[in-house]
Amino acid sequence: MHTILKSEKKEVIIGIDKPFVIIGEKLNPTGMKKLGQALVDGNMEYVIQLAQRQVAWGADVLDVNVGHPQIEEVTMMPIVVEAVKNAVDVPLCIDSNDPKILAAGLNAAIGKPLVNSVNGEEKQLSAVLPIVKERGAAVIGLTIGEDGIPATAEERLAVAGHIIERAAKMGIPIEDIIIDPLVMTVGHNSLAATVTLRTIELIRKEYGVNMSLGASNVSFGLPDRHSVNSAFLSLAIQAGVTCSITDPIKLGSSIRATDLLLGKDANSMRYLKYFRATEKLREAEAAAK
Amino acid sequence: MHTILKSEKKEVIIGIDKPFVIIGEKLNPTGMKKLGQALVDGNMEYVIQLAQRQVAWGADVLDVNVGHPQIEEVTMMPIVVEAVKNAVDVPLCIDSNDPKILAAGLNAAIGKPLVNSVNGEEKQLSAVLPIVKERGAAVIGLTIGEDGIPATAEERLAVAGHIIERAAKMGIPIEDIIIDPLVMTVGHNSLAATVTLRTIELIRKEYGVNMSLGASNVSFGLPDRHSVNSAFLSLAIQAGVTCSITDPIKLGSSIRATDLLLGKDANSMRYLKYFRATEKLREAEAAAK
Repeated sequence: MHTILKSEKKEVIIGIDKPFVIIGEKLNPTGMKKLGQALVDGNMEYVIQLAQRQVAWGADVLDVNVGHPQIEEVTMMPIVVEAVKNAVDVPLCIDSNDPKILAAGLNAAIGKPLVNSVNGEEKQLSAVLPIVKERGAAVIGLTIGEDGIPATAEERLAVAGHIIERAAKMGIPIEDIIIDPLVMTVGHNSLAATVTLRTIELIRKEYGVNMSLGASNVSFGLPDRHSVNSAFLSLAIQAGVTCSITDPIKLGSSIRATDLLLGKDANSMRYLKYFRATEKLREAEAAAK
Repeated sequence: MHTILKSEKKEVIIGIDKPFVIIGEKLNPTGMKKLGQALVDGNMEYVIQLAQRQVAWGADVLDVNVGHPQIEEVTMMPIVVEAVKNAVDVPLCIDSNDPKILAAGLNAAIGKPLVNSVNGEEKQLSAVLPIVKERGAAVIGLTIGEDGIPATAEERLAVAGHIIERAAKMGIPIEDIIIDPLVMTVGHNSLAATVTLRTIELIRKEYGVNMSLGASNVSFGLPDRHSVNSAFLSLAIQAGVTCSITDPIKLGSSIRATDLLLGKDANSMRYLKYFRATEKLREAEAAAK
């Protein structure tokens, strides 16, 4: 099953038979003071720089989130989308909980964007799905039900099924639904990652849909988070996850290596190209400092 | 199924329900000039240092190989085994192609050692298995047949079956056979790792035996080998590999992270202990330089 996203000229295909798709996570002011300030100041130069840097480091799609206590998001979202779409030619992922902010971002985006996100709560489904349908976008569906994040893989599968079914009723095709099986930190619960891996296997078997993961939650509260995040991405890709909202600079090499190992990179072309490009970037960024 | 190795006081259990077992690879002069010279000079101090360093960095077992053009291996093997067993209390893995050298090493070792290795060729099986049986050791069986390394997973499974069967006829129990499904570099063949991963799955399903991998072959000829090696170990552990002859200093953190993610590390105890210990070691080694 292929989820197709589009920017002005570029098409990104997400699928189990395709290289893993990296959705750059850095255009999000949560915990990023400098970006938060840039947005408050209306400084689009910094925003554009962050967008370009992520694409240079291998992001196929860019997530755009403008959540900040001092920002009027409905106004800011289209301004940022406009700036980013003029600076880089990659599909965008409009990131908010609020349907009004999503609609504002989707209207400003070109091509076929992705919505981040809806969940399995009726309130969210009925508010977000019509906007997705109207815009002809794709959407990430988090496996959160009316009672929060289910503890078991079977319950998360059921939430995924409910989201897919509700979307189908609205006329949104199943290939435009990307399910997020969710991962909690293994620092608090040793079985947190195994539940997610089992959820991935169940969803892949039952629905064959694309799946996305925010990979860094898994290591929250642990030291040497990079070792845990990169190992988890490899395990999740093998299990069936096909894209991730993540940091291309930190995790690009692990992702390209995993694609290579799973036979998705004939003659190591992407791996070698990535290595050469990032080697130059690393040198250039070190020199600039 | 559990493979149990023993040193004087320590027991190491290899099994799919146990943390991954690291067999330290560094006591091998191949490509290690300094160690080669130390062996030629009979300098056991350096050998002991290498043994202690690997154990400090998390090696559960130590591989001992003395292959060098200027060394009479039958004489040298027991000398090195003697030195290592007096310095560190971990089981040893006696590493040679030559049955005489294996026998010399096994005689010097205490507890229950591992033999590295036999393969599926009749000549090797009939020369090595009697020595393993007599010593009551465990043995690594490489999936190499009379015609070399098979191209397909099914053929490698057949070689594994042949080794297990021949060992059983000699009275060596199946739990004392650790199969190496072999991996070639993905730099030459994009499907090299997928064949290995499929072999692991088939062997696990058919025989349930423990499996070992030399993980660094997979990245031969590629840049940034660490990204490929660590991702491959994660994938192989998920598929069913239970131990590896590898570098604990380079790959220990990825291995401990993968164990944690696969639910083999209650309350992150081993992961956190490993992080704290190696953080101190890293500081101490940096200071010593």
